[in-house]
Amino acid sequence: MTTVTSVDARTGKIRMVVGEESTHRDVDATCARAAFAFPTLEAMGRDGRARLLRAMADGLEDERAAIVAVADDETALGEQRLDSELTRTCFQLRAFAGALEEGSYLEATIDHAAPTPMGPRPDVRRMLVPVGPVAVFGASNFPLAFSVPGGDTAAALAAGCPVVLKAHPSHPATSRLCFDTMTAAAAEAGAPEGTLGLLYGRQAGIDLVRHGAIRAVGFTGSYRGGRALFDVACSRPDPIPFYGELGSVNPLVITPAAAAERGSEIAAGYVDSFTLGSGQFCTKPGLAFIPAGKAGTQLITEMADRVRQLGPSRMLNAGIHDAFVADCERLSNESGVEVVATAAASADANVASAVLYATRARDFTERVLEECFGPAAVLLEYSDEAELMDALGRLKGNLTATVHTGDDETDLPARLAGVLIAKAGRLVWNGYPTGVAITHAMQHGGPHPATTNPLHTSVGTTSIRRFLRPVAWQNAPQAVLPPELRDVGPAIPRRIEALPTWTHR
Amino acid sequence: MTTVTSVDARTGKIRMVVGEESTHRDVDATCARAAFAFPTLEAMGRDGRARLLRAMADGLEDERAAIVAVADDETALGEQRLDSELTRTCFQLRAFAGALEEGSYLEATIDHAAPTPMGPRPDVRRMLVPVGPVAVFGASNFPLAFSVPGGDTAAALAAGCPVVLKAHPSHPATSRLCFDTMTAAAAEAGAPEGTLGLLYGRQAGIDLVRHGAIRAVGFTGSYRGGRALFDVACSRPDPIPFYGELGSVNPLVITPAAAAERGSEIAAGYVDSFTLGSGQFCTKPGLAFIPAGKAGTQLITEMADRVRQLGPSRMLNAGIHDAFVADCERLSNESGVEVVATAAASADANVASAVLYATRARDFTERVLEECFGPAAVLLEYSDEAELMDALGRLKGNLTATVHTGDDETDLPARLAGVLIAKAGRLVWNGYPTGVAITHAMQHGGPHPATTNPLHTSVGTTSIRRFLRPVAWQNAPQAVLPPELRDVGPAIPRRIEALPTWTHR
Repeated sequence: MTTVTSVDARTGKIRMVVGEESTHRDVDATCARAAFAFPTLEAMGRDGRARLLRAMADGLEDERAAIVAVADDETALGEQRLDSELTRTCFQLRAFAGALEEGSYLEATIDHAAPTPMGPRPDVRRMLVPVGPVAVFGASNFPLAFSVPGGDTAAALAAGCPVVLKAHPSHPATSRLCFDTMTAAAAEAGAPEGTLGLLYGRQAGIDLVRHGAIRAVGFTGSYRGGRALFDVACSRPDPIPFYGELGSVNPLVITPAAAAERGSEIAAGYVDSFTLGSGQFCTKPGLAFIPAGKAGTQLITEMADRVRQLGPSRMLNAGIHDAFVADCERLSNESGVEVVATAAASADANVASAVLYATRARDFTERVLEECFGPAAVLLEYSDEAELMDALGRLKGNLTATVHTGDDETDLPARLAGVLIAKAGRLVWNGYPTGVAITHAMQHGGPHPATTNPLHTSVGTTSIRRFLRPVAWQNAPQAVLPPELRDVGPAIPRRIEALPTWTHR
Repeated sequence: MTTVTSVDARTGKIRMVVGEESTHRDVDATCARAAFAFPTLEAMGRDGRARLLRAMADGLEDERAAIVAVADDETALGEQRLDSELTRTCFQLRAFAGALEEGSYLEATIDHAAPTPMGPRPDVRRMLVPVGPVAVFGASNFPLAFSVPGGDTAAALAAGCPVVLKAHPSHPATSRLCFDTMTAAAAEAGAPEGTLGLLYGRQAGIDLVRHGAIRAVGFTGSYRGGRALFDVACSRPDPIPFYGELGSVNPLVITPAAAAERGSEIAAGYVDSFTLGSGQFCTKPGLAFIPAGKAGTQLITEMADRVRQLGPSRMLNAGIHDAFVADCERLSNESGVEVVATAAASADANVASAVLYATRARDFTERVLEECFGPAAVLLEYSDEAELMDALGRLKGNLTATVHTGDDETDLPARLAGVLIAKAGRLVWNGYPTGVAITHAMQHGGPHPATTNPLHTSVGTTSIRRFLRPVAWQNAPQAVLPPELRDVGPAIPRRIEALPTWTHR
């Protein structure tokens, strides 16, 4: 058995032993409990699960001080950031509770029997039902909002799916505390045992994705880890959907008008955004396209000044620190790439220095398009619109793409939108992509390699859709229909006689 | 080069040479044309594509006589059936045109900027956009409705995705004629060249799924073929969604009350349904659960009588005929399975005899759960509810599950619904699963092995969702937004301020 230890991110010392890595037998037992819990969790209904999510949010808030303290020890993200991350996490759970009560996520539809050109059509009613137990993998950089109590968990529970969590190895004690808190809240809210399960260890994660009871996977993490687990999910005898939110370089374009009109403001905003949280965000704007010429040169100078004034950047753990240092070394040695500015250095463990690189947009290399997780960014100088468009065409898929425009624009912004829509799931205008609002309209996900499935989001209330499948009832008696599809049903949005009009020549 | 020939399904003789199997270079060129057509097809907008779909329907109807004749030669399905299949196909294209005009499929959502517990939230607007060129594989058993002019093509074009078709080898001339007709209609409707492409040959199909320009795949066919192509789609450097509609045994349950109250009617209906179209439907009810006892025995006797009175069943082609005969032989030799009745035999080429088998629900083998494509069905006798529930629990995923109930029921139907919802995408009550209405509420798809992705449907207007991905615009100027997301937009359903209410303690 391998011991699971909680490590202090600032000192590198072991804080405590959290437990043992989960065995095959643990995975089996945990998944079996989830499968057993599934019908009962579903039978709690929308109102019951809304109460469950709110009870979890309340429970987490009751433990706020303890959770923030242990998360800070394990991640060094700082108490202020973690306090606000916990607020976000509880908001998220409550937002999904609201979505459950509102009910439109079910896509309830009733098409009554009717004549058609092919003869009479039966009564058909459709809504979404939960897929079954879901596996959720916690992320290193969000010990709360994208880990045990995070968005994937909230979405799966809202859908009616029990969740088996794989704790991230860099914050096992935070994972355990959140799990215990939520499990206690679940019991009080009347949810079945097995509604949540928790596993530790790399092999347990692989076994979890392979387990027959698991019907879908939510993952946030590195491309390499995510792709390996995606391959496991697809090679099962019965493949299951794998929703992996992976790497992204999040390109940001500064138009000539934007550079001319408000260069200083953009220089400040951009450096703040790419170094926020030591650059450890999947939405970090890692590539910025800067116009050549006087305004662009001034912009680069101002960015460089700001980077040189930055203090040291503490990283989440030794592994991430070392990977960042190695990425920076590779970038520094890349042909055509030069270091524009470096922040103050520090001899402390796991502390890095922010770096600003620059290269030409016309001939950047593949390496420049690879995510560098940490406080680094690459500026790409473009001489004209053709060069810019050509460079944007070479981008891969991203979570976000950002455009900074000026007041005095031609139709360049519209043309940029046309190119960038193929490259990202969220287009940000005159702002920064770090910070992902929890709204119904949010999209967090994009073309490969940003996610393994660009058809869905992992943030916002429509992320529930990942864990639901449609079922149609044909000519069903009222008594066997779910309440939401009965003639007299609860007050939720429903589409009735939804087939669009058709014409027949 | 390998010649592609059109074969007469009744005589086995070559009717004509349709062309050559597509080479790597053909695949490349066709996919490149599709990629080139993509932005123009999307720019036609919802109204432009609605006109395109209607023009295609009109064009197909203009060629009705020729299409029905060649399809009948190639499939032997009969002119009446094919005439009605063409009507369905045109209805389907027009239904999607209607869905485009109605516009709710875009899921347009506007969340204005607002305060939240985490600070101010930006303006976020979301809608679905086309994924890019889509590959569509034609099915053997529906030369029109699930082939070149079929549902996958209609859904992808509606979404705004060019379609590259892989013709099914058993009806290449039908595929070609439909393709030519639709391509001419597309040109007249102002769609770009490359909106549709057509390929022949097994290797071309594999190359197509691997091609970098292809962003999703729609497939209807066998489990083996579908799974192989699914594996190709998942093992790409950039995996793409693969929507495979594969095999299904479509269980049908007859309750004791149903058997007692209307056994004769059910016997007639069931034999009609499993032998319709020579049993060559993915929705054929291949397994029927019959209560032991007097009413059940009488039901089996009446079914057997009806099967013995059936004429010979002409199969789609020699391969399907031979596979059916081999499947029947294996079933006949299966332990516990007995032949109850066989229809008249015929010495004609590609003509089979319907067969009715029976076994005990308590100990049926895996083989009984495998799809047998053709006019065969297995009756499973159950002695009591526990045995029935246990047997249903052993079923795999299906496209449909059907229940026949009587007037005099306890809560058995509700309990059956509870078990069957995990096993199928459509629950049919007191009817038969063959015949899939094109409605908004339809679900055609179910848990593995019925489909490779149970979260979507391949019939009905919501099947468009397979070929769309969400994009969010954050703080975007009006000019760069799609019309559907502007403050003053077209008259389509939109959700505004859609985030459900939340409470904060």
